[in-house]
Amino acid sequence: MIIYREENEIIREALKNINLPKNVYIFDTTLRDGEQTPGVSLTVDEKVEIAVKLDELGVDVIEAGFPISSLGEREAIKKICSLNLNAEICGLARARKEDIDAAIDCGVDRIHTFIATSPLHRKYKLKMDKEEIIERAIEAIEYIKEHGIKVEFSAEDATRTELNYLKEVYKKAIEAGADIINVPDTVGVMIPRAMNYLIKYLNDLDVTISVHCHNDFGLAVANSLAAVEAGAKQIHCTINGLGERGGNAALEEVVMSLHCIYGIKTNIKTEKLYEVSKLVAKYTEINVQPNKAIVGENAFAHESGIHAHGVLAHALTYEPIPPELVGQKRKIILGKHTGTHAIKAKLKELGYNNLTEEQFKEIVKRIKSLGDKGKRITDRDVEAIVEDVLGRVAKKERVVDLEQIAVMTGNIIPTASVALRINKDVKKVSSIGVGPVDAAIKAIQKAIGEKIKLKEYHLSAITGGTDALAEVVVKLESDGKEVITKAASEDIVRASVEAVIDGINRLLKKH
Amino acid sequence: MIIYREENEIIREALKNINLPKNVYIFDTTLRDGEQTPGVSLTVDEKVEIAVKLDELGVDVIEAGFPISSLGEREAIKKICSLNLNAEICGLARARKEDIDAAIDCGVDRIHTFIATSPLHRKYKLKMDKEEIIERAIEAIEYIKEHGIKVEFSAEDATRTELNYLKEVYKKAIEAGADIINVPDTVGVMIPRAMNYLIKYLNDLDVTISVHCHNDFGLAVANSLAAVEAGAKQIHCTINGLGERGGNAALEEVVMSLHCIYGIKTNIKTEKLYEVSKLVAKYTEINVQPNKAIVGENAFAHESGIHAHGVLAHALTYEPIPPELVGQKRKIILGKHTGTHAIKAKLKELGYNNLTEEQFKEIVKRIKSLGDKGKRITDRDVEAIVEDVLGRVAKKERVVDLEQIAVMTGNIIPTASVALRINKDVKKVSSIGVGPVDAAIKAIQKAIGEKIKLKEYHLSAITGGTDALAEVVVKLESDGKEVITKAASEDIVRASVEAVIDGINRLLKKH
Repeated sequence: MIIYREENEIIREALKNINLPKNVYIFDTTLRDGEQTPGVSLTVDEKVEIAVKLDELGVDVIEAGFPISSLGEREAIKKICSLNLNAEICGLARARKEDIDAAIDCGVDRIHTFIATSPLHRKYKLKMDKEEIIERAIEAIEYIKEHGIKVEFSAEDATRTELNYLKEVYKKAIEAGADIINVPDTVGVMIPRAMNYLIKYLNDLDVTISVHCHNDFGLAVANSLAAVEAGAKQIHCTINGLGERGGNAALEEVVMSLHCIYGIKTNIKTEKLYEVSKLVAKYTEINVQPNKAIVGENAFAHESGIHAHGVLAHALTYEPIPPELVGQKRKIILGKHTGTHAIKAKLKELGYNNLTEEQFKEIVKRIKSLGDKGKRITDRDVEAIVEDVLGRVAKKERVVDLEQIAVMTGNIIPTASVALRINKDVKKVSSIGVGPVDAAIKAIQKAIGEKIKLKEYHLSAITGGTDALAEVVVKLESDGKEVITKAASEDIVRASVEAVIDGINRLLKKH
Repeated sequence: MIIYREENEIIREALKNINLPKNVYIFDTTLRDGEQTPGVSLTVDEKVEIAVKLDELGVDVIEAGFPISSLGEREAIKKICSLNLNAEICGLARARKEDIDAAIDCGVDRIHTFIATSPLHRKYKLKMDKEEIIERAIEAIEYIKEHGIKVEFSAEDATRTELNYLKEVYKKAIEAGADIINVPDTVGVMIPRAMNYLIKYLNDLDVTISVHCHNDFGLAVANSLAAVEAGAKQIHCTINGLGERGGNAALEEVVMSLHCIYGIKTNIKTEKLYEVSKLVAKYTEINVQPNKAIVGENAFAHESGIHAHGVLAHALTYEPIPPELVGQKRKIILGKHTGTHAIKAKLKELGYNNLTEEQFKEIVKRIKSLGDKGKRITDRDVEAIVEDVLGRVAKKERVVDLEQIAVMTGNIIPTASVALRINKDVKKVSSIGVGPVDAAIKAIQKAIGEKIKLKEYHLSAITGGTDALAEVVVKLESDGKEVITKAASEDIVRASVEAVIDGINRLLKKH
């Protein structure tokens, strides 16, 4: 594995006098702070499934939720506690008896209790003075300890609190029995230098220090790492950087930075990161952007000529780490920026080995011109271009053609009938479905037989009017061979049918 | 405006002995590095429109593209140069005569020329030794200067280059006439401390230093800021952090950090950030994730009880900066984490002012229970719950009901007929459309008359099979009043029709 602190002179020099820990604990709050992401709401079963995956991933602590917030929340946390996972299970509680009782009732291993300490929160939210806040914190911590449960204590909005008061609060919390103190940058206003300063300031407290960084200025991961440079031993983070507003520190970025830049260990099995990211995205219905570090669809994709050329010569020229390390794969994508090296590699992959130099040049020109028009170039586009340049007549090669189609819906059972020409024969069939598209595709499948299977159907979101273009992508499979085809039309039924017929032809075509 | 360096003790202390510049130049590379994002391809018109917006936003330099890469690229850059924008226009060129000629031909103000310097790139990509690389760099810089054009020089993969060799390259580049030297962290392996170290190491060179940070570990913004702390005066960045792999430093995050945390000025009109982000997302077809700092849909959204309560009492309790500063708006979202304060505010907003305490408690309970089931709660859901609790019979209030609908498509003109009961009368009409949904909605509109307009139609992406649930959201307008309604069905026609009929009823309902 690459460790840049060892291989890279700049990083080695910069970290020379820094006393780094050998390992750091990962406190995952995807199920608590992550689930508080506006618009996200997980069911009990989804929370349990994610908890199991987080445990397999190797997180040290799972903050499973905020027990007082709802009955469903409590049920989920109880279930997670009953699974006997390796990870410690933690519940959140304000410094109030009823919150703590709800957490105890769930059977958690650790309670993360908090009270705000900043002037703004004291005045406008809590309406309490400094002393009152300390008293509440002490009461809460002592109450939890009486029940024999581990306490993690947070001074909410710590990073906007007076330094000396903040230290006093933490001191009193430790005296009351807090096992871990957590320093939340509640509205994400820290910069790495300031977070480093703050943790150093608190570092003479005899306790494990944890940090919880928000991402309002895009600095959550950097601030967490700067805290580790100053002595913090635990980092709060979430899968995909989920969380309120700009989110929390992204687990995948924190962990890969620790492992590959700093050479600091965690218990995370990094090759599972991509899979867990996908699962969380699916259940929260919040997809990461393609240009998201580590787990984004583009994180290991290369399009431009220079980059694709470099990566084909030696992957590390344009990749900081091998994609397999995080469970991803390298992708070479064609577009207007594509150079000849990537196109050559793609043509080889598609099985076109005997092109003349002239044909190749013409193909490159056409691919770039298609890219210039703002089009994303699929394998199918490349094949169409190659076939055109080679003078093949695609139409002639079609094994299956749609002669007629009729589809009805409304307050009747959606029904479709098709007439398909397969080689020389015309086959006429009908089918019902749950909707017009389903009926049409089922009719085509009936006509074709069971050999060809529709594995995936994807319709891109339509925005604008009811006459906007619908883009359909389908994946078909036959005898282990898969093809992906695409079609666009203002009529969603037509687009779906065209994509499927196109795919069938590609599967049945002899190369 | 908030400046945390002034107001926040921790940041003030941490930056006490740091010599910060008063202002920093923003070099925008959305149209070059951003456009190299795999899958992105902008047309000439789109590039020109974005350039105009970037200029209005106030960026100092627009890197408009890589002229040698394609004819369309060249055309776009030429057009942008001809607009006489306030921003300097820059073109990218490898340290090769043909690349530079292509850039000169476009009429750019500045040429950004580069050659790789790291051992990995020397050996596997360029196959050149150290001296040869320096010679090429000098030749390129001198050639550009002969044409009277400003030169920005990059040592590609600078952050993986031997420190002493890197400094030598830059020294020679400055002697040859480079006006700005740029330090690219090409594969994003730096951490803030290391970037700070590197820029300090180079800071005795008598030239403007710029940095270009990639985001492979999520640290691009933090690294750029750490470079400014060490003396860098220009930052390369992109709107929405677009770029190859994990992207580049996000302009909006860099700028807001400089303004609001450091108190360093740029020429950016920050209140335009959200609008420009949306435009770039639209043309690149790459949406930012909701939990993206500054410009994400959730960046100023609040759902959880504690946060929504805090924000309603004083916005800054849970917002680092006011949303208006970046052209955004605050949103209070209801869900399972919602507390009573947010629900009270929402009910007031929807016009329900006379609820008894008991009714209110029942409404809160039902909203939370809906949230526990994993459902996102819309205003419509809240209204339905309130109406139910208040004992109103929604069905009775419906002004319009769909009695019959039939829709046909296939290889015919998509056609629909509907029978709508409007008050007591039944109206029967037919319409054609470009597809089945279009025909159905057009028929309904014909029956209703021109008073009600369909302003927006949105169909969420469908993934899985042809029998997956289709979710439709429509916005209807009548006499300046707008309603947004939603429906889901396995039949896309049915979902669309339901959403529209629902919206019509809401518009015609007397409160």
